[in-house]
Amino acid sequence: MFGVLGGGEGWPRGGWAQRSGARLRAVAAHAIKAVCVVHNANSTGVTSDIAAVRRAIDAAGHPALLLVDTISGLASADYRHDEWGVDVTVSGSQKGLMLPPGISFNALSPKAIAASQTAKLPRAFWGWAEIIEANQNGYWPYTPNTNLLYGLSEALDMILGEGLDNVFARHQRLAKATRRAVRAWGLEIQCADPAVYSPVLTGVMMPDGVDADAVRKIIYERFDMSLGQALGKMRGRMFRIGHLGDCNDLTLMATLAGCEMGLKLAGVPVAGSGIAAAMDYLASHADTPILKAAA
Amino acid sequence: MFGVLGGGEGWPRGGWAQRSGARLRAVAAHAIKAVCVVHNANSTGVTSDIAAVRRAIDAAGHPALLLVDTISGLASADYRHDEWGVDVTVSGSQKGLMLPPGISFNALSPKAIAASQTAKLPRAFWGWAEIIEANQNGYWPYTPNTNLLYGLSEALDMILGEGLDNVFARHQRLAKATRRAVRAWGLEIQCADPAVYSPVLTGVMMPDGVDADAVRKIIYERFDMSLGQALGKMRGRMFRIGHLGDCNDLTLMATLAGCEMGLKLAGVPVAGSGIAAAMDYLASHADTPILKAAA
Amino acid sequence: MFGVLGGGEGWPRGGWAQRSGARLRAVAAHAIKAVCVVHNANSTGVTSDIAAVRRAIDAAGHPALLLVDTISGLASADYRHDEWGVDVTVSGSQKGLMLPPGISFNALSPKAIAASQTAKLPRAFWGWAEIIEANQNGYWPYTPNTNLLYGLSEALDMILGEGLDNVFARHQRLAKATRRAVRAWGLEIQCADPAVYSPVLTGVMMPDGVDADAVRKIIYERFDMSLGQALGKMRGRMFRIGHLGDCNDLTLMATLAGCEMGLKLAGVPVAGSGIAAAMDYLASHADTPILKAAA
Amino acid sequence: MFGVLGGGEGWPRGGWAQRSGARLRAVAAHAIKAVCVVHNANSTGVTSDIAAVRRAIDAAGHPALLLVDTISGLASADYRHDEWGVDVTVSGSQKGLMLPPGISFNALSPKAIAASQTAKLPRAFWGWAEIIEANQNGYWPYTPNTNLLYGLSEALDMILGEGLDNVFARHQRLAKATRRAVRAWGLEIQCADPAVYSPVLTGVMMPDGVDADAVRKIIYERFDMSLGQALGKMRGRMFRIGHLGDCNDLTLMATLAGCEMGLKLAGVPVAGSGIAAAMDYLASHADTPILKAAA
Repeated sequence: MFGVLGGGEGWPRGGWAQRSGARLRAVAAHAIKAVCVVHNANSTGVTSDIAAVRRAIDAAGHPALLLVDTISGLASADYRHDEWGVDVTVSGSQKGLMLPPGISFNALSPKAIAASQTAKLPRAFWGWAEIIEANQNGYWPYTPNTNLLYGLSEALDMILGEGLDNVFARHQRLAKATRRAVRAWGLEIQCADPAVYSPVLTGVMMPDGVDADAVRKIIYERFDMSLGQALGKMRGRMFRIGHLGDCNDLTLMATLAGCEMGLKLAGVPVAGSGIAAAMDYLASHADTPILKAAA
Repeated sequence: MFGVLGGGEGWPRGGWAQRSGARLRAVAAHAIKAVCVVHNANSTGVTSDIAAVRRAIDAAGHPALLLVDTISGLASADYRHDEWGVDVTVSGSQKGLMLPPGISFNALSPKAIAASQTAKLPRAFWGWAEIIEANQNGYWPYTPNTNLLYGLSEALDMILGEGLDNVFARHQRLAKATRRAVRAWGLEIQCADPAVYSPVLTGVMMPDGVDADAVRKIIYERFDMSLGQALGKMRGRMFRIGHLGDCNDLTLMATLAGCEMGLKLAGVPVAGSGIAAAMDYLASHADTPILKAAA
Repeated sequence: MFGVLGGGEGWPRGGWAQRSGARLRAVAAHAIKAVCVVHNANSTGVTSDIAAVRRAIDAAGHPALLLVDTISGLASADYRHDEWGVDVTVSGSQKGLMLPPGISFNALSPKAIAASQTAKLPRAFWGWAEIIEANQNGYWPYTPNTNLLYGLSEALDMILGEGLDNVFARHQRLAKATRRAVRAWGLEIQCADPAVYSPVLTGVMMPDGVDADAVRKIIYERFDMSLGQALGKMRGRMFRIGHLGDCNDLTLMATLAGCEMGLKLAGVPVAGSGIAAAMDYLASHADTPILKAAA
Repeated sequence: MFGVLGGGEGWPRGGWAQRSGARLRAVAAHAIKAVCVVHNANSTGVTSDIAAVRRAIDAAGHPALLLVDTISGLASADYRHDEWGVDVTVSGSQKGLMLPPGISFNALSPKAIAASQTAKLPRAFWGWAEIIEANQNGYWPYTPNTNLLYGLSEALDMILGEGLDNVFARHQRLAKATRRAVRAWGLEIQCADPAVYSPVLTGVMMPDGVDADAVRKIIYERFDMSLGQALGKMRGRMFRIGHLGDCNDLTLMATLAGCEMGLKLAGVPVAGSGIAAAMDYLASHADTPILKAAA
């Protein structure tokens, strides 16, 4: 049995329990084999404190594995597989690594590998034995997505060239400017706790009675900009602004301008200019190293 | 229980039986749920008569599903999912579709979909319910490999522009010229039955005592050409010449010239010039429509 | 002798007279062989009324050829070689045609071709005889820039797909929004006559004492955006905002946001928010067909 | 007055004398200002000994400038602007530099620059003053072909990565193999003197009565391979095989196979197999470093 905290689109969906009644008894009995956490929840704009989850597991003396989905967090928000004691990390190419979709990654702790060797469940994505063996000589057991591997090499050069700390600071900067804009519009951010704001995306709540998808449609048709839809029970109540990857002050300003004009065209009452608030923030915080296009 | 005929690198490897003793009993009891066949065996250069397998299943009045791997056959050799009564077809982007690796495909019969709806086994790649639903509106349940979908659209334009019959005839033509070359070298083709020669690749057997991988290494190092390694029990005894996809008379001649010079450099005794034999065939069969580079 | 009106970077610079004393006498004597006009002055943001120049030449009964540089105007501003009676049109790939630099074009009237056949001056770019002959069969006398010709074919598909009238309307829309922003900043536009505002670029004058190049440098270093330098006697007194080619409302907003933040960082006093003024214009003129990215 | 030795497609064609009667008198009077030589004659497959031309000019005590067209020679055949005392070298992107057509280059001696400063002839391509000034700061006086400059940087990395000596040896190797093939066919090479065989291309003479262009047409239509046409008085009497740039043993074998099959299809009697002769040469000279595709 797995225990799932939050949810992320990168996880296989079948067979993981979320029934809270049974959960406590399962914890006590060590029936729970692994704790799954989403590092950056791409559907809500919330990050999780992975190190704290690890500490809680350890404090309980519980042997569960810690499995983390950082598909939309890796290379945008600080993440430390080894230091935080994660057993399995799952990520993908199409977010902070700035590549097309097509490859995903697992990082494994020795404990995860050991567990895998004795596990009896049928596996596809999580069947690591063959790939671990082949990787030792630089090969893959099956045909890999060779083109994206070349792209990955280039993306890593770009990220390390900018500097990981600068990459993270840039994402924080753009996220802060976005939140200034949302607040200036008088709208709510879909994340109640400022301590866990995502540096990757911001969920913008619509006032009661406004259909967020109708706003998204106007922005798409009028400004050729596609904003993320809200999922699940938030559907129609908010839209998502992404500010990750190959993104800088001016691409963010274009995005926020599209939102502000779209809100106006959709008849959503806004308190003030988000654009002005974002520019105030960016122009008065002009000390962060910036991302330059390759020469 | 599945019954597997032949083997192909596209299939998940865990849990399918190949024990022939139990097989007959299982057939009698209808314990076998599906027959898996590889359309074009990429490791050996052999094709299978899929329609004949279907007829045999039907003649036995057996309810088993027919599952076919045509990863390396699709768009190079004739293949007919509906007409041949296949229940599940598996293919991929990286062979006859001329794309980088990165996407694979399933074609499903109504019978396969119905079986899937009642099946209880854990599934990843074969969990079709979500994708069937999302595809109805042109979407995917998870993030698709968008770039390869654009490439696929272009590849299909190329293939349909050349004409499927012309594509198949071109592959047959190149395969025949290759076999002429192999015979002129005095070497054996790894496929005993001419009726099932693959139009996609040709396995070239080495004389006793010659290490095929040493020949491959010389050709790679000297001519920058990478030939396919033999797998399993054929390892070291043959190499594979691919003649599929975006390939024409002259790219084949380059390939065969690299093989012929490499055989000579490796000290493999050859009976005569394979190049001359291939050119004789190609120049005297100059009526096939050819593949032209896009204008 | 040529008479040159205005000036443009596309013209060979040697040997054309601009001495106004001699000019009147030359006109009277028909010593002037051609009148050269720049359709869209890329260094100033001013367009010329080509049809009016033609009418003036005709009204004077003067036989001079009319030569027009529309390097930065073609495919962004309306231009009519035949209808306006132009004899030689010069253009290039790198502006409204949205291609890299590398090819330029001449359109020729029968009168220009006839004049060329009897002219005795040494010629390089304007030596048309060989290219006219070779073009009749779809060839070139020298090695053409083949890759850009493929690009040109694609660019023309894009332009004609959007519709030339829509392309021109889009450029006018973006130019108007830009001028609203400049006026809101309280700055002057480098073009005194609104009738000849360029739809391609806008020259923004700096207040006295402000070095425009210092402002440009701050914007480049802080926002990775390169604005056009002023040339000649305007050097250091203005910068140029381009709004041409593959450009839409949001790319313009990014550009204007970079300018507004850069002006603030450079300490240039601005009267108000240009961004707000531009968004007001764009959001309240939401009826123009827009440019969509290719699907 | 210029004296022109040979001819090349890269030179402006107007106004240079080739009248041999007047030439001797002009030499005596130092009326000849420059000697123009083609380093690698792309239409014939002949190279010129540039250093010998320089020595002859110097031996005669003649002040003429030495101008060299190495459009098709640069980066394929050894060439030394400074060491050989060349005054003006002209080259282009589309041959040994492996780029699309679109940029050309001039290398200038101090003597050429000095002559240019006092020359009074009208100039376009050869007007160096502005570009020399702008280049000092890394700029151009007009809009350069920026994309090809990026390509050039990459091409130079490839060439220097392989090593210039290896690049030249590879071209010589491929040229020798080609000549072996031509001789095995029993055909003549269009270059009487082996000392000046071109490493870049080989002209193949047709037997009397055979239309070379008809052979070229068959090869193009049947094998999708475009061979160079003979120009001028050789028209219809030979075709040209290029073996330059990004080219290795196997691409050459493809080319020669297309020629050999095309000759057969055109009914041209050939003495023997050129392919076999070329392979004999290549396989028995397997010590040259080879060009590997980028990893």
